[in-house]
Amino acid sequence: MFILPNNVTIIEVGPRDGLQNEENQVTTRDKLTFISALQKAGITEIEVTSFVSPKWVPQMADAKEIMQKVEKTGRQFVLAPNAVGADLAIEAGAKSVAVFVGVSNSFNKHNINRTTNESLQLVEPVIAKLKAQNIFVRACISTAFYCPYEGQMDQYAVLELCNRFVKLGVDELSVADTIGRANPLECYSLFKKLRERFPDVLLTAHFHDTRKMAMANIYAALQAGITRFDTSAGGLGGCPFAPGATGNVATEDVVQMFDVMGIQTGIDVKQVCEAVSTIAPHLSRSIETGMYKLYENEQL
Amino acid sequence: MFILPNNVTIIEVGPRDGLQNEENQVTTRDKLTFISALQKAGITEIEVTSFVSPKWVPQMADAKEIMQKVEKTGRQFVLAPNAVGADLAIEAGAKSVAVFVGVSNSFNKHNINRTTNESLQLVEPVIAKLKAQNIFVRACISTAFYCPYEGQMDQYAVLELCNRFVKLGVDELSVADTIGRANPLECYSLFKKLRERFPDVLLTAHFHDTRKMAMANIYAALQAGITRFDTSAGGLGGCPFAPGATGNVATEDVVQMFDVMGIQTGIDVKQVCEAVSTIAPHLSRSIETGMYKLYENEQL
Repeated sequence: MFILPNNVTIIEVGPRDGLQNEENQVTTRDKLTFISALQKAGITEIEVTSFVSPKWVPQMADAKEIMQKVEKTGRQFVLAPNAVGADLAIEAGAKSVAVFVGVSNSFNKHNINRTTNESLQLVEPVIAKLKAQNIFVRACISTAFYCPYEGQMDQYAVLELCNRFVKLGVDELSVADTIGRANPLECYSLFKKLRERFPDVLLTAHFHDTRKMAMANIYAALQAGITRFDTSAGGLGGCPFAPGATGNVATEDVVQMFDVMGIQTGIDVKQVCEAVSTIAPHLSRSIETGMYKLYENEQL
Repeated sequence: MFILPNNVTIIEVGPRDGLQNEENQVTTRDKLTFISALQKAGITEIEVTSFVSPKWVPQMADAKEIMQKVEKTGRQFVLAPNAVGADLAIEAGAKSVAVFVGVSNSFNKHNINRTTNESLQLVEPVIAKLKAQNIFVRACISTAFYCPYEGQMDQYAVLELCNRFVKLGVDELSVADTIGRANPLECYSLFKKLRERFPDVLLTAHFHDTRKMAMANIYAALQAGITRFDTSAGGLGGCPFAPGATGNVATEDVVQMFDVMGIQTGIDVKQVCEAVSTIAPHLSRSIETGMYKLYENEQL
């Protein structure tokens, strides 16, 4: 009924999206150990850090050192929230940079005190500069389904925002259910439209597991033709606007599901769990993912 | 692409399947409060207890009292593992009885020291007696996908076992991924075959969430035409053969997913969480479901 792909790509967001809201300050050494173990597990695309102001996100204050010391294999994404961050990323030798805009006006207002349109205007010259240096640009579209302030987003607003990014020449669109509220029907519907409208851009689905629909959403997005998925080892992360929320969908659970469906990821689940075990002792939260629990109980 | 149903039925298994492996002895009064709260939430079919030997499952020693005192609204299932249990269930006035057989020989051997065929021979006269009294018989098919001892099960063995139950006149087949290892493709494939082959029997999918695929499996089973799902409030339960495993897929998470997909269940998610809050303080484990965490954080 559906033609599913033979291969998918996992983009690991744990070291950046996963750690940015972590209360405990994780040392640079521990982060590098974590990233290195994830690379060893076969993960080729990783969000490694963010050139955000250390005043706002102290956890990412070591961005420059992370970029210097991380092993340059595959793609290392760094987040650049604005022009200053992009300049720092370029200086640090980043070859792949992520930029963010939310679909929701209220969400952007709360985050950076700008409307969606103003946020886009802010990011336009950043993208131009990055592309002029032949840097891979990943555009992260947050609140693509629901906004914590405005509720359900309009699909056409998402398509229009994506269209503007595509026209700016971005290489990848990562479309996110930021607060973990989208359902499989909505995911199928939006990703099918995105896939058809933007056949030439890398299209990635980013799910949070707040309401435990992330795995079903991945399956639905897969049916819609999506072959790239953002995931976070250990399920690290979470939205600051949803205190009870769990984090991103877990790399080890997603990779396992693809494994048993016969879809190749090139990633070893047990080694992902080993990577998680290096970071787990340094975190303020416990790891509740399916595969990590089996790993801890020596059932892997 | 798929025609999804307007309504589905949730069969709550928490008070039986969920509690049977609970270490703390839960009082009869607390169980009745839990069941009553679940009924108030709109759940019409509930596994309330099991007429199993109290020597083996002390938690279910109060089966008779539960059956006497539980409110008789909708369907109250009791489990009868054998002829003795069935007689006790009949005596207690049960109108709906569940019987169990695993697909896997090894699994049945470990559980009741009988092969699958011997187990079926044991249950045949039980079903005949129940049907003679016009009792609704639910046949629970365990290890329908994977066995902890034998690995993957043959689909034709499942179909054949189901066929024998249907010939014995059972009203419902509840087909289970007992150890939480099946993936969405396997679920779609098996449930589509079952739906086509047994159009006249109630067909129910029963998933455990060990590897976090249960929600995706429910979505896949829904696409295969399944409209009945076993779930457990609070995600209670778990397989004794998989110590690290979490339990059954959670009623509140499943109901929420159906709600937002526009599929009616007749069940109120918040009231399910309230029911869970009545039992939670009496359990040895914490509740980790998506909706219950939101409920605890007053985000519902």
